[in-house]
Amino acid sequence: MPTHATASATPDSCHHADGSTRPPVIRTDILIIGAGPVGLFAAFQAGVLGLKCELIDVLDRAGGQCTELYPEKPIYDIPAVPGCLAQDLVDRLLEQCAPFAFPMHFNERANGLAEVAAMPAAEHTPGHEHAHRLLVTTDTGKRFNVAAVLICAGAGAFAPQRVALPEAAALEDRHLHYAVRDTARFAGKRVVVAGGGDSALDWALALRKTAARVTLVHRREGFRAADGTVAEMRAAVAAGEMDFVVGMLGALKTEGETLAGVDIRTRDDTVSLPADELIALYGLVSEPGPIAHWDLDMRAGRILVDTSTYESSRRGIFAAGDIAFYANKQKLILSGFHEAALALRRAYHYAFPEKALVHVHTSNNATLKEKLTHA
Amino acid sequence: MPTHATASATPDSCHHADGSTRPPVIRTDILIIGAGPVGLFAAFQAGVLGLKCELIDVLDRAGGQCTELYPEKPIYDIPAVPGCLAQDLVDRLLEQCAPFAFPMHFNERANGLAEVAAMPAAEHTPGHEHAHRLLVTTDTGKRFNVAAVLICAGAGAFAPQRVALPEAAALEDRHLHYAVRDTARFAGKRVVVAGGGDSALDWALALRKTAARVTLVHRREGFRAADGTVAEMRAAVAAGEMDFVVGMLGALKTEGETLAGVDIRTRDDTVSLPADELIALYGLVSEPGPIAHWDLDMRAGRILVDTSTYESSRRGIFAAGDIAFYANKQKLILSGFHEAALALRRAYHYAFPEKALVHVHTSNNATLKEKLTHA
Repeated sequence: MPTHATASATPDSCHHADGSTRPPVIRTDILIIGAGPVGLFAAFQAGVLGLKCELIDVLDRAGGQCTELYPEKPIYDIPAVPGCLAQDLVDRLLEQCAPFAFPMHFNERANGLAEVAAMPAAEHTPGHEHAHRLLVTTDTGKRFNVAAVLICAGAGAFAPQRVALPEAAALEDRHLHYAVRDTARFAGKRVVVAGGGDSALDWALALRKTAARVTLVHRREGFRAADGTVAEMRAAVAAGEMDFVVGMLGALKTEGETLAGVDIRTRDDTVSLPADELIALYGLVSEPGPIAHWDLDMRAGRILVDTSTYESSRRGIFAAGDIAFYANKQKLILSGFHEAALALRRAYHYAFPEKALVHVHTSNNATLKEKLTHA
Repeated sequence: MPTHATASATPDSCHHADGSTRPPVIRTDILIIGAGPVGLFAAFQAGVLGLKCELIDVLDRAGGQCTELYPEKPIYDIPAVPGCLAQDLVDRLLEQCAPFAFPMHFNERANGLAEVAAMPAAEHTPGHEHAHRLLVTTDTGKRFNVAAVLICAGAGAFAPQRVALPEAAALEDRHLHYAVRDTARFAGKRVVVAGGGDSALDWALALRKTAARVTLVHRREGFRAADGTVAEMRAAVAAGEMDFVVGMLGALKTEGETLAGVDIRTRDDTVSLPADELIALYGLVSEPGPIAHWDLDMRAGRILVDTSTYESSRRGIFAAGDIAFYANKQKLILSGFHEAALALRRAYHYAFPEKALVHVHTSNNATLKEKLTHA
């Protein structure tokens, strides 16, 4: 069962006449923004309808909130799935859309949106004058030329909760980290890890082997982490391999561009810790992100859609799942599945204005028959 | 995994002062008409919301079209169920709603609909003046007093395809049968079984042991039945235990009120068979049924609904699944799941006008946690 990205078959970059390297525009039928459960099922539906699609997600893997926030949470209300864990749900949806092998682009945030000519003048063919195309650009510079966009961004784009201290912004990515991407840079350093979840404990434990000293800082004695991990941390502290301080970050002390130490406010006092690197793992918060500036009618941060097509106020832009809003909207995953299915049937007419969409039961879909098995 | 009816806890009948026996009115929150996939998931959703409900179906078991028409058909587009057979889908949905143990009433067709006072004057309590209740009666005389009705009747109520010959109507239920309910009545009789599906073959084979003679009549040599059953039938014919005639019913010959014989039109000729009983098993056809006379706005035999509540033109009557109609409606099972979920959230306010509906994730539902397991 695939749990990671399908590699894109599209070339990542090309050399231009002016010598610059800029990725070529990726031309497809549908761009799906958000590879959570609803985005994955949308990709499956696109495949069933004979549409080509690509997915982007700001996270580094598929699954959205289910994978990032509560992979072990049991879910009981997916129809015909009497009980499963959130991560299992994602795995099942990855399996379901795998036969279509649609490219998924991770660590990409949708940024810009523009309406563009249907095709370059050189390729212009009669009958396509009125076809409407959209160009979406991402924060890394990828460009997608599509007939329609389906936004399945859940609560929005996730971002790490940041340290709310005045010195934080200047230190970010140099000595203040919201994720650990390269463990080698912490070798021999005095590291403070702030946070009380699995990530904070796992990284504190992992880095103690190579760092000069690791200190875990959390505002209380209790943790939102696996019992075994908490026990392992307490044993490491008892063995003198790392420290644990109950308190909150009070100030970051700098020397020029480097971190010198952090002050920890404990219940009764302030403790000054010398530190070279600070890793803050406070979890993720959702942000509306650049989509909020796409001139879509919004209600309380969500995209207002028509309930027969799930199209937004802007032609060719659809929304499904928690980010969609309409009267009596319920934040149910199963509603997102329906919304995506209807949105794509309308979007089909933007991709193929000249064709009628004929309903074919999936029982007769040759790709699915070949690739999927029924228990 | 339960595959059949949950027995109703409601007493089936009571004696009245006038000596007549009439079933008491069943009072519940929601009546679900149709126990196919959408009706079953609707029952689950009712349970999640804390609503009481009962289901009725014109068939003798749950599953609707999936069970009756294509139990072995693979289905690939149920979200997070990459592949399953139609009957498996029904079994999974039965498992999912089983924790709530809602009564299911089979062989019941919804007939009458009336608006009724919220409660008998004797039970009247202040604050309920405006509560709106509906009374649904079935063809067997059961009566349901409910806050709302959710119609999940698919293509309508199924009925056996009848014999289109002038003598047929007068013989129906006496010597012409569209189902076998009591095998004893065929003992020692000359029985003609017409049809080419599993039911026809199964009953011809079963009755040959007790009937005087069984003749299977089918319009061609090929069958829509399991290969093993066809082989068993041919072996029984070869062994002289029963007959098989390729042809179509041409005329029913009667003597007074009884059947004397049937004429079979074969390719070249007409064959007269003496017969006491005729069993015609031509499969099911759908009929709109009495719901067509409930004063609901309809479009081409389907119920027009609002796409944020899935309520029909009549207050308290909702529709979900294939029988519901709106712009861009797709006959997808997954759409029916969403429609039922939203319909029940609106219906909740009819059942509990004074309460706010608070969304609780199913992860925290004690009944489901106890009864359902996640793989």
